[in-house]
Amino acid sequence: MTKKRLFAPGPVEVPPTVLKALAKPVMHHRTAEFKEIFAAAKSKLAQVFCVDEVIILSASGSAAFEAGILASVPAKAKVVAINAGKFGERWVGLANEFGYEVIEIKIPWGKTVDFEVLRQSLKSHNDIKAILTTHSETSTGVLHDVKTIAEIAKQESPEALVLVDAVSSLAAAELRPKEWGLDVVAAGSQKGLMLPPGLAFVYLSERAWANNKDLNPSFYLDIRKERMAQQKNSTAYTSPVNMIYALNAALDILLNEGIENVWQKRALYTQAIIKSAEALGCKAYAERVSPAVAALRAPEGILATDIVAGFAKRGIRIAGGQDHAKEFLFRPAVLGYGDKYDVITLVAALEEVLRELGVDIPNAKGVAVAMEVLQGS
Amino acid sequence: MTKKRLFAPGPVEVPPTVLKALAKPVMHHRTAEFKEIFAAAKSKLAQVFCVDEVIILSASGSAAFEAGILASVPAKAKVVAINAGKFGERWVGLANEFGYEVIEIKIPWGKTVDFEVLRQSLKSHNDIKAILTTHSETSTGVLHDVKTIAEIAKQESPEALVLVDAVSSLAAAELRPKEWGLDVVAAGSQKGLMLPPGLAFVYLSERAWANNKDLNPSFYLDIRKERMAQQKNSTAYTSPVNMIYALNAALDILLNEGIENVWQKRALYTQAIIKSAEALGCKAYAERVSPAVAALRAPEGILATDIVAGFAKRGIRIAGGQDHAKEFLFRPAVLGYGDKYDVITLVAALEEVLRELGVDIPNAKGVAVAMEVLQGS
Repeated sequence: MTKKRLFAPGPVEVPPTVLKALAKPVMHHRTAEFKEIFAAAKSKLAQVFCVDEVIILSASGSAAFEAGILASVPAKAKVVAINAGKFGERWVGLANEFGYEVIEIKIPWGKTVDFEVLRQSLKSHNDIKAILTTHSETSTGVLHDVKTIAEIAKQESPEALVLVDAVSSLAAAELRPKEWGLDVVAAGSQKGLMLPPGLAFVYLSERAWANNKDLNPSFYLDIRKERMAQQKNSTAYTSPVNMIYALNAALDILLNEGIENVWQKRALYTQAIIKSAEALGCKAYAERVSPAVAALRAPEGILATDIVAGFAKRGIRIAGGQDHAKEFLFRPAVLGYGDKYDVITLVAALEEVLRELGVDIPNAKGVAVAMEVLQGS
Repeated sequence: MTKKRLFAPGPVEVPPTVLKALAKPVMHHRTAEFKEIFAAAKSKLAQVFCVDEVIILSASGSAAFEAGILASVPAKAKVVAINAGKFGERWVGLANEFGYEVIEIKIPWGKTVDFEVLRQSLKSHNDIKAILTTHSETSTGVLHDVKTIAEIAKQESPEALVLVDAVSSLAAAELRPKEWGLDVVAAGSQKGLMLPPGLAFVYLSERAWANNKDLNPSFYLDIRKERMAQQKNSTAYTSPVNMIYALNAALDILLNEGIENVWQKRALYTQAIIKSAEALGCKAYAERVSPAVAALRAPEGILATDIVAGFAKRGIRIAGGQDHAKEFLFRPAVLGYGDKYDVITLVAALEEVLRELGVDIPNAKGVAVAMEVLQGS
């Protein structure tokens, strides 16, 4: 019997109370009873987003980003897309698909955007309508400083909207869309919110909502139509009833903990994983670490794929590296419901795996570092 | 304590084993273990669809129809849209939104398409690229004869694809997309498949897949990209893991029953509801009855909204009429997990409700009719 553990940057372990809520009998979505449940979820979700209103979609996180750009950036507009990994690359593809004129800022994996490069790019065009960026770039473990990106945008291209993929950063990294002046923030259910995959969320600033001219067509992902329905606590299409039950349950846990505490805890856990891994001969990969995932370089001479397989043998699923990073990168995460003992478990397993692969490690060397970082938490 | 019953044409009651599957711990979607589960669901789903391959989307049913049209009908193409109710109207709106040239065949509510009108419409244009129709039009309870529609299309506009909204007909009404020559068939999870809302399904014929030129852009709903992933038992975006567990459980129940038996049972149940209601002074509304829903006209002088409210008082949720049909139409349904005793319960409650509203009904008059229709089933 091998106990299963999910230590990947999404999907993540879902708390039993959330799974229980998910399995409640279906109710009709056009009832007063469901409208109350929907209203509660909406209001709690806005608190976790630190905004006033979030649109909920029955879809996965990528759909939220698509919905956000289609609802606020005019067709054929010129957009700057920061591409620092697989998700940045995805948004370049999305923008190209819909016929936007894409100015791509390509950044080496593991690095964050050079603010001067961004500034120059904005300076050299006077008609940028939007800037697309990831917040936590899950493929590289980098947390982009979207607050500073928004400040630079305000200085150099005040009309440009700032669109942020916060799929893996929501409820993991500090994120204050209103205070920071972000215009579109997209997220999904299966990361920091510790729900199964299947819900997508999108926030739009008032000026993004006001941008309603010359938009590309949209239908299922038309969040302007959704907004009208959701302001009446309904949805334009059939509501994902059971996922909304579960959303309520997960949000209760997060708000009970306090969103700022959640951010601090995630940052601490990721730091504990990284520091321990460094003590075991791995290297932190991200220039600016995302609290959502610990991107680690395998020790010299060790294949990251063997590390992933070593974890799998122990019933633990972590993420490997993508594309060219497959051989050297591995990406464990303790998100959502995961706690400090999960961090210790993860590090203990990493020690075992590396030892098995021939790295000479004194007993509990990594775990000692983790426990020190976690002290008092 | 009022026991809750969901007798609406979706969402429907979900079997306990399906709810239990839904609440299983999340696993990572990029694992061999999940690929097996996904492959099993895909294969069973194809059997229920009577086709070889169905694409699964994390979205609601409408998204499947959108994905189908975007993947197979060239941009700006001329399409005939059969509008016989709220869902027909939705597809006219969808086609207009994406810039198709829409020739609308508008049909009075409660009626099915006049084949001669369709034939003439196709004859008078030589460049129709697609015909959009509902199969079961949930708003009116009409089942359109999509088999004959496809035959007429073949005769008059052999190049035109036939796109069918089967959201409420899948696993309720006989549906043989391959045999009948349908090109796009879209469905959702919360009706005959007796799952919670949140999955959308779409079948494309080989000639629809071959139609890959000059398409409108799509990204999240790009089923050509999904097809490539799903042929490897993966998904382009994060798989809705828990809904796939539940899908497997629901498909097991349906296939164990046999899809033809399911069709027969649904037709019989709906007939039992309609015959009983007629005996109680209601009138069947649909010219050609869909097994997915019993659309009924309230007896003269009785408001349908009062009937819906009378059911609600008894913990039973049925659907009312939409738009102009609100005052006279009510739409109960015993779909999915609902059985013959649910039909009897529904009819018993209808008797009570009508009696309360002043209709003079001898005791068990409706129930006797229902039991006669159901005899031997």
